[in-house]
Amino acid sequence: MTGPVTSKPLIEALKGETMEVPPVWLMRQAGRYLPEYRELRARARDFLDFCYTPELAVKATLQPVRRFAMDGAIIFSDILVVADALGQTVGFVDGKGPVLEPLDGAAGVGRLSLQGLPERLAPVYAAIAGVRGELPPATALIGFCGAPWTLATYMVEGGSSRDFARTKAWAYGEPEGFRVLIDLLVEALAAHLIAQVKAGAEVLQIFDSWAGVLPDTAFWEWSIKPIRAIVERVNASCPGVPVIGFPKGAGILYEPFARETGIDAVSIDTAVPCDWAARALQTTITVQGNLDPVMLVTGGTALEDATTAICARLHRGPFVFNLGHGVLPQTPPDNVQRLVDCIRGRVP
Amino acid sequence: MTGPVTSKPLIEALKGETMEVPPVWLMRQAGRYLPEYRELRARARDFLDFCYTPELAVKATLQPVRRFAMDGAIIFSDILVVADALGQTVGFVDGKGPVLEPLDGAAGVGRLSLQGLPERLAPVYAAIAGVRGELPPATALIGFCGAPWTLATYMVEGGSSRDFARTKAWAYGEPEGFRVLIDLLVEALAAHLIAQVKAGAEVLQIFDSWAGVLPDTAFWEWSIKPIRAIVERVNASCPGVPVIGFPKGAGILYEPFARETGIDAVSIDTAVPCDWAARALQTTITVQGNLDPVMLVTGGTALEDATTAICARLHRGPFVFNLGHGVLPQTPPDNVQRLVDCIRGRVP
Repeated sequence: MTGPVTSKPLIEALKGETMEVPPVWLMRQAGRYLPEYRELRARARDFLDFCYTPELAVKATLQPVRRFAMDGAIIFSDILVVADALGQTVGFVDGKGPVLEPLDGAAGVGRLSLQGLPERLAPVYAAIAGVRGELPPATALIGFCGAPWTLATYMVEGGSSRDFARTKAWAYGEPEGFRVLIDLLVEALAAHLIAQVKAGAEVLQIFDSWAGVLPDTAFWEWSIKPIRAIVERVNASCPGVPVIGFPKGAGILYEPFARETGIDAVSIDTAVPCDWAARALQTTITVQGNLDPVMLVTGGTALEDATTAICARLHRGPFVFNLGHGVLPQTPPDNVQRLVDCIRGRVP
Repeated sequence: MTGPVTSKPLIEALKGETMEVPPVWLMRQAGRYLPEYRELRARARDFLDFCYTPELAVKATLQPVRRFAMDGAIIFSDILVVADALGQTVGFVDGKGPVLEPLDGAAGVGRLSLQGLPERLAPVYAAIAGVRGELPPATALIGFCGAPWTLATYMVEGGSSRDFARTKAWAYGEPEGFRVLIDLLVEALAAHLIAQVKAGAEVLQIFDSWAGVLPDTAFWEWSIKPIRAIVERVNASCPGVPVIGFPKGAGILYEPFARETGIDAVSIDTAVPCDWAARALQTTITVQGNLDPVMLVTGGTALEDATTAICARLHRGPFVFNLGHGVLPQTPPDNVQRLVDCIRGRVP
């Protein structure tokens, strides 16, 4: 421990401070691996209903903070609430993931509307305000959204996809039509992030979970540029609120992403070598990452060794400990405790 | 066209020649997108039966060569024939992909055996010999296998996976046990590649389709090292036969993979920027890639522009045109013709 808390370590690290003990939070730290979450989840009709019930979302958000004293609390919500709030039909089928009525090209985009967004997403903002009131003083509250490209893939494919053929074929074959959707998402997502800050979020993360399937020219067009537009709006409305970008699977393209989007920190996936990240990214930006979530399933000395190695390779610059992807449902909670202990007690 | 054919352009390019017109072949160039393939496929009971019937495998292999005059003919087979030949139960369910009886740790590995491999795979070698006899003189015959890591994921998970949690947890938590499986696969796969060359294959490709999910230390251990062991054996038994490696999704790790495995050429996926590949890989090795397969679904000027751009960015060094992944089933065959015409008629 670094002595009495005078500020929030997560925010300090995101603003470029090199910390003695890296702050830690985990993507999907609230979720099915926690028995107290499963108990809570059983109270809501469906997943979207759960996200839109502030009382439940507040409790779910706080569960891992209370259990593990995480440095960040990410609001319990989903990237698809924005598609829902724009007027698309969104459902979640247990064990199958999200199911959307696929967007039908330009006509489908024409039926979406920004009008109802603030009202539909009001429960998310209410949950954020609720969490903020109950958060330990050293814990930072994280709001988030999906990036335009990633959200577009769900909206166009109607759910998850193996090849993203519908979305890509549209983006490649009719870029000006696809741009109307992306531009609308930039508006909606910037508004959603700004509203989260107004409600109490102190940090923002933009998840571009499917950025890694794009060739580089398309990556610039549909990942970097729209995210830069969102970050510009957020910076103008909410100066000083750090933004983390997560272009999962971007590989070589992490470097231009980190440089060109205007983000304050970049979350790296499991495949990014930490030494490369220290050299190519951390010299100009905070790096967050990147333990393999399967290590939290494995546990034992393998977990400790991998954790220590990541800290050793990234502790010389601004660094936030996180996973390379979300916590897996089969993760034993004790392994998360072991991870947090390891980070806080053993960093070189 | 470059005048009368005196040798095989694919082999020349793989051996380091910079060609005026890049040779071209496509991963999954034989397959469901071709009506003549679907007609042929209907004659076999199941997919594995199809692979093991030389008459059918020969015809399927030759179909895209006849239609598009590809520079390479890849033998129609599957990476899972080796799991089957080792004694694991392998099936293919239409629309669902491969289904294997998941390997049960060390006990499961103990039940696998190299003994039956040459006999079980004899039909693959018969098909290779059959194709070789019917191939146009400028077309090179490509044999292939899955890499140990990728094959292990199918064998341990029992099929495709989203998170590879079983395989990774084994590799992370009990590396010496997992190594027994990987070492066995190195033996089996080296033998399979060498037998393919003896039957008539002139080029080999090793598909490490899931290398990109590994953190860097595990990537070195379970992708680079086993592939290097295979390449060493192949080089010793079959000097002069070029080997292509394809660590899909490896990102930053393409560079050590290309440098350390001993391969002659590296196949890059869609997310690898060609300019980076020209700088970081093509200075020492032939680069193969990397059009997005969805571009072949899109067609039109988008297809031509993307094709021309890739050629322009990689034509100054040894280069083989290919996709970043396999041909999609919904690809219109006319678009493949258009691609080949574009490569052969329009390279700057």
